[in-house]
Amino acid sequence: MHNRVAKAHFVGVAGSLRKASYSSAVLSSLRDHAAEMATLEILDLRLPLYSEDDDGAATPEAVRDFRQAIGASDGVVIVTPEYNHGIPGVLKNALDWASRPFGRSVLIGKPVLAMSVSPAFTGGVRAHAQVNETLLAIQARIVPGPQVVIGSVAEKIRDGILVDESCQRFALAALDRLIKISGSLEGSLPA
Amino acid sequence: MHNRVAKAHFVGVAGSLRKASYSSAVLSSLRDHAAEMATLEILDLRLPLYSEDDDGAATPEAVRDFRQAIGASDGVVIVTPEYNHGIPGVLKNALDWASRPFGRSVLIGKPVLAMSVSPAFTGGVRAHAQVNETLLAIQARIVPGPQVVIGSVAEKIRDGILVDESCQRFALAALDRLIKISGSLEGSLPA
Amino acid sequence: MHNRVAKAHFVGVAGSLRKASYSSAVLSSLRDHAAEMATLEILDLRLPLYSEDDDGAATPEAVRDFRQAIGASDGVVIVTPEYNHGIPGVLKNALDWASRPFGRSVLIGKPVLAMSVSPAFTGGVRAHAQVNETLLAIQARIVPGPQVVIGSVAEKIRDGILVDESCQRFALAALDRLIKISGSLEGSLPA
Amino acid sequence: MHNRVAKAHFVGVAGSLRKASYSSAVLSSLRDHAAEMATLEILDLRLPLYSEDDDGAATPEAVRDFRQAIGASDGVVIVTPEYNHGIPGVLKNALDWASRPFGRSVLIGKPVLAMSVSPAFTGGVRAHAQVNETLLAIQARIVPGPQVVIGSVAEKIRDGILVDESCQRFALAALDRLIKISGSLEGSLPA
Repeated sequence: MHNRVAKAHFVGVAGSLRKASYSSAVLSSLRDHAAEMATLEILDLRLPLYSEDDDGAATPEAVRDFRQAIGASDGVVIVTPEYNHGIPGVLKNALDWASRPFGRSVLIGKPVLAMSVSPAFTGGVRAHAQVNETLLAIQARIVPGPQVVIGSVAEKIRDGILVDESCQRFALAALDRLIKISGSLEGSLPA
Repeated sequence: MHNRVAKAHFVGVAGSLRKASYSSAVLSSLRDHAAEMATLEILDLRLPLYSEDDDGAATPEAVRDFRQAIGASDGVVIVTPEYNHGIPGVLKNALDWASRPFGRSVLIGKPVLAMSVSPAFTGGVRAHAQVNETLLAIQARIVPGPQVVIGSVAEKIRDGILVDESCQRFALAALDRLIKISGSLEGSLPA
Repeated sequence: MHNRVAKAHFVGVAGSLRKASYSSAVLSSLRDHAAEMATLEILDLRLPLYSEDDDGAATPEAVRDFRQAIGASDGVVIVTPEYNHGIPGVLKNALDWASRPFGRSVLIGKPVLAMSVSPAFTGGVRAHAQVNETLLAIQARIVPGPQVVIGSVAEKIRDGILVDESCQRFALAALDRLIKISGSLEGSLPA
Repeated sequence: MHNRVAKAHFVGVAGSLRKASYSSAVLSSLRDHAAEMATLEILDLRLPLYSEDDDGAATPEAVRDFRQAIGASDGVVIVTPEYNHGIPGVLKNALDWASRPFGRSVLIGKPVLAMSVSPAFTGGVRAHAQVNETLLAIQARIVPGPQVVIGSVAEKIRDGILVDESCQRFALAALDRLIKISGSLEGSLPA
């Protein structure tokens, strides 16, 4: 376990690769607002497509770096849109890589905070549910508490910054739960 | 928190009302095998259909008893079949009652271990996923670890007893995780 | 097949039993607006809890009536809230009854139009997804087209009537698709 | 609509990129067995990661070819494993590309037959459910009938060929439903 004398160190991933993505905007806004309590390093999901054939001795370097960054962190923040009523393929592909090797994934027991955003009013909750189910499958440690869901997100972001104060407070409160849970001595379960 | 000098006390629910239900058989087999470590009181899901109109001052007695039994327990064990690719209405109805009053449910922070069973080979995993999603919504504390899923359950039960030893060991290991998590001082999250 | 010289005849179910339920309000508003094109008979979901033991020779009369009403109709309209991120137990219980006897359900091939409503902005889409998955399991015929989802529904209903015109038009367009599909000669599939 | 004097022409996708993938083996076995009734062209899912920024004027050629192959076909066959209790990222990424441009996807109204396979007994049904939900979102035309789910698939394939006769018959019966539905004059819905 890390030494919580230092600040918590998290990694963050955005489920959309779009340059002006709402997910990225929410993620970087959180990073900036939480800077005194934690660092939040935003990772790139531009990984190769998952294939078991490519894993093992020849695992692509981008994947090894991705896994290592998660492993070295105190927890993960996922902010994702919803594509076609589900998780974006880009995000699932990254989670598929991170889930391996089976039984030794860096995500096992790792605290993960997921949020969903959508320009639609529905807020991406179906993608959110699929992320949760996959995190349970991998045996990551889902941060408990009220789900962070941001609907009509286009109206809440200006110049790449989350300007809706109510959403911001709600998301920061969730980040605070992540900080607390990641700093607790107990892992998700006694061995 | 309870005092773990005493045995852990759990409540169990079976998602099927059928007398010879496989879920009930698994539940009572677990109860018998774990008797030295924990008591497992099996609750009846024969509650009225949920209606907000009937909740509050006039909450039916069966519902008040159901909530109280959960609240007084150290954790909950759910064993459920899958009906029509989803959670049985009977089980969801009980969880809908247990989820209320909003924000003060007895399930908040309560450790819950869910298992699914099916006479089909698929093992009821879609029902399982829906139970998980609902438990997250209610902010119950899902017991981490490998999912207990029993496919082809009819072949594994004889005279109302789970006789498949491999399944039994797997389910008891999960129960052991429930015991450990329910006895830990830490709740799911520092307040 | 019915004779479409006569008006189409549909049955409707609301996923909430609350007297002033938003689902019921949407359903009765649709009934009133579509009265020239179709009749919409609203069914009561106050059925016993499903148990296989109670089905067969001794099927409760309310269940037999429920199945018969569906069987005699040209299609079904479901309007449902979301409870704890999923389908209400009350609605799932009714679908569990309607799904039986296995292989001879009155819902097989029956056109079904599902809508979800929620006082939350998220609109009940997780319940909606679970309803769809169950309808596919039963081999009902899901009416294609854009999903009808009504978020923030409390603001769109006054005195038990859906007063939001945009929602109303959208829902009526879906009902129109149901009318067309139910009147087509082709069933969902050549035998 | 196409002229069914000619054989039906389908495209198939396998949710796994592994060379010796079970999904590919099932797909090619179906192709060979159905050769007299239909052609089944297997498409490669090695597409770039989806980004809205890369779509439009500069859509990658592989994506344009993928869309065109679907558009020119009479229907689609998806055979997919389950990764981490959900749809493989690779497959979802392909469906995310195929779903665009919004409102003009080549999948709208296109008959799609999905199957899931797994070396686990559970058969990949959670991935299957997520595929269905996404197909409904895109307004593809899901082929009705009993779901094709192949559990313990490793035991049913030898030398890259699906040798389990019962599974084969079941899958071919589903393919037959796809052929019938794709040849019917009626689209999923009158315009």
